[in-house]
Amino acid sequence: MKVSRYKKEDDITYALGATVVMEYLNNRPDLVEGVILHPKFSSEDTISRIGDICKANGITVATEEKPFNILSQKENCFVIGVIRKKGASLKAGNHVVLVNPSNAGNMGTIMRSCAGFGILDIAVIPPAVDHFDPKTVRASMGASARVNIEVFETFDKYQERFSENNIYPFMLDGSTLLQDTEINEPFSLVFGNEATGLPSEYSKIGRPVRIEHTSNIDSLNLPIAASIALYASTKKIFSGKA
Amino acid sequence: MKVSRYKKEDDITYALGATVVMEYLNNRPDLVEGVILHPKFSSEDTISRIGDICKANGITVATEEKPFNILSQKENCFVIGVIRKKGASLKAGNHVVLVNPSNAGNMGTIMRSCAGFGILDIAVIPPAVDHFDPKTVRASMGASARVNIEVFETFDKYQERFSENNIYPFMLDGSTLLQDTEINEPFSLVFGNEATGLPSEYSKIGRPVRIEHTSNIDSLNLPIAASIALYASTKKIFSGKA
Repeated sequence: MKVSRYKKEDDITYALGATVVMEYLNNRPDLVEGVILHPKFSSEDTISRIGDICKANGITVATEEKPFNILSQKENCFVIGVIRKKGASLKAGNHVVLVNPSNAGNMGTIMRSCAGFGILDIAVIPPAVDHFDPKTVRASMGASARVNIEVFETFDKYQERFSENNIYPFMLDGSTLLQDTEINEPFSLVFGNEATGLPSEYSKIGRPVRIEHTSNIDSLNLPIAASIALYASTKKIFSGKA
Repeated sequence: MKVSRYKKEDDITYALGATVVMEYLNNRPDLVEGVILHPKFSSEDTISRIGDICKANGITVATEEKPFNILSQKENCFVIGVIRKKGASLKAGNHVVLVNPSNAGNMGTIMRSCAGFGILDIAVIPPAVDHFDPKTVRASMGASARVNIEVFETFDKYQERFSENNIYPFMLDGSTLLQDTEINEPFSLVFGNEATGLPSEYSKIGRPVRIEHTSNIDSLNLPIAASIALYASTKKIFSGKA
């Protein structure tokens, strides 16, 4: 199977690692163009599960070493999925909005937390890291197969389409603490860039929320802030399920 | 200044990047053996602040390129701190306990969140990743200069010394949800390995807590689970500070 170093302009991306590939096969086999197994991959059970799903869905399976040298560098990776990129359209409901996210790993980790807390729609406001980047896909542990990501030209365009949503911009100088804020559905949890946060004008688009922390640190890591917000915003939904 | 590739047995470790080095200079200048500036580092302001602190503390400053080739690889790093490793002793109070953590970046991210939520004492139960690893120090964004980390031979030895602490093991099959659990001080929030979690016997050492998530994902990323637990356990302390 022919693969080449990932480029943003390509129509395909790559899922690196058995866990990530299985997520695509189980949830979005329609997006999987092919699966490549490393000749040294010896997990019979996984190979047979991959074979079954691929057969049922008409997906090619190849066993070759070369694609691993091109795509996976030093990582401990024995399965590659060739994934067709497909744009998604956000559904009405609860959203996470990422304004100018710049780190591929962070974006993947946020996808994983979003999927974990049942928020499957993520809006992205550019400039932003490529959400199809194999590093993002891998950091998401395959949650990228489950979430809908739509890139909006501006935040205004996002808000026009989802005018019913309650907007909660997360800002270091937000006026209310997360624990004292009632997050009402449908909600949009809005986060800024890793280094610079949200531009100050975002304080006017909704109720700015702050995750209080000590002066020991400048800020929380972005996926951590987003995940704490997701936890706090969805815990009512989960409560009573003990 | 002579530097060599980091080894676990060494008496020194390295802080890579201006932010991380400044954290050490501001908080633990006693641990800084030297600071190395890249010849191309041009931030006059930072250079002058580093110079002042180093002068006041008798710390050598050198400007050389070679150490960066040895230590920093491709990262965007213009300042290196040579840091003396020093064991720490846990103080009584609230703790995070990491049982068999295996990833250096994760451990650093947890240190950063701990410092952020004011929990400065972290117990580690081996086998565990080296908490002095430069990757850990860097992921902590220098919070490693603020937290006390003590490695205990076993969890029992930890518990012997802090028998007054309320133990909350975080487990995927924990019997109560985090949002329904009263976390009483002094607390110990206990987390297992990234891939395997806590061994099942930990359910007997305290009240096992679960951070509920959908079946979309197998588990939350470890630093994210720990940070959500830290947020939930300390929010009373911060509340009312709005």
